[in-house]
Amino acid sequence: MSQVVAITRNGVNTEQLYGTLDAIKDDPSLGIFQFRAHNHWIDGAHNRSTIKSFYGAGQEDSTRIQEFTVDAGEPAILLGTDTGPNPAEHLLHALAACLTTTLVYVAAARKVKLTEVESTLEGDMDVRGCLGLTDEVRNGFSRVRVNFKIKGDATPEKLQEVVERAKGRSAVFDMVSNGVPVDVGVVTA
Amino acid sequence: MSQVVAITRNGVNTEQLYGTLDAIKDDPSLGIFQFRAHNHWIDGAHNRSTIKSFYGAGQEDSTRIQEFTVDAGEPAILLGTDTGPNPAEHLLHALAACLTTTLVYVAAARKVKLTEVESTLEGDMDVRGCLGLTDEVRNGFSRVRVNFKIKGDATPEKLQEVVERAKGRSAVFDMVSNGVPVDVGVVTA
Repeated sequence: MSQVVAITRNGVNTEQLYGTLDAIKDDPSLGIFQFRAHNHWIDGAHNRSTIKSFYGAGQEDSTRIQEFTVDAGEPAILLGTDTGPNPAEHLLHALAACLTTTLVYVAAARKVKLTEVESTLEGDMDVRGCLGLTDEVRNGFSRVRVNFKIKGDATPEKLQEVVERAKGRSAVFDMVSNGVPVDVGVVTA
Repeated sequence: MSQVVAITRNGVNTEQLYGTLDAIKDDPSLGIFQFRAHNHWIDGAHNRSTIKSFYGAGQEDSTRIQEFTVDAGEPAILLGTDTGPNPAEHLLHALAACLTTTLVYVAAARKVKLTEVESTLEGDMDVRGCLGLTDEVRNGFSRVRVNFKIKGDATPEKLQEVVERAKGRSAVFDMVSNGVPVDVGVVTA
């Protein structure tokens, strides 16, 4: 009698995880994804993205029922009315979220049970760049620091390894660290 | 008799805008900012950032009353339960939001009244990278496309110029295009 046990570790169904990896190994075309966002300006520094559709695993997704909305803004000192985190803060969130999910998945695959993952991110910016006051500084962060606090049923060395592997595989860490070609088109009408 | 009129254009108080630019020109140290996010893992692909404090204009901010929370997740095909946009989608939002706010501010400064700004973003990803199945593709997007639709009381050429200037000054466009040094520290306890 064979025994099939669905093992969920760190909230990740590891059978589904291994199954997904095997399916994409067998048919690499299933790994092709396209993610999307639609943004519209509301007023001043207030704008909103709606996020729902994506392409992946050979088809347009039909499983996501909910459309997500995410608002952006600026604090008063940067001429906004605090209608949401500002875009640079959203970038920090994207980075934190991706490193965290990647390390949670890596830990699940490596049989490490996590009990706590927290991170604090700081990004340094001289806003003279993005305000157009000087070309001597860049427009974005000069540097970002991420500090993780992580606990689980593994040695400190093993937990460190999990974080290192997450750095080595996180999509957003790659993009923020190395950059991505971005094409910008405009229709005026 | 001097006449002082507060001109709000595109939802931006242009007097405050010019005043801010002058103040930072006079004292460049006021341009030093630090933005922050704190993230904690909830379960599986679900994690949440809280965003509130920042440093800027020579002091810790005391004006932002509200703490923002932003949730991340993954769709079922990527082993989550759709608890929020995924991290790569959040990055697209950060990029859209920053380009939009920058172009709205640029237009306000250049006396262009905007009536509509929308953008659609697509990012192409072969998830074999971030899933650790191959080193032949990168972990993040191979390419991002941003398509703006913009309307206002200016010629198409002028509106195109505004978008070009926003590309040239957007903090997140700079970071996503060119990358940023990211330090990752870990405490295990």
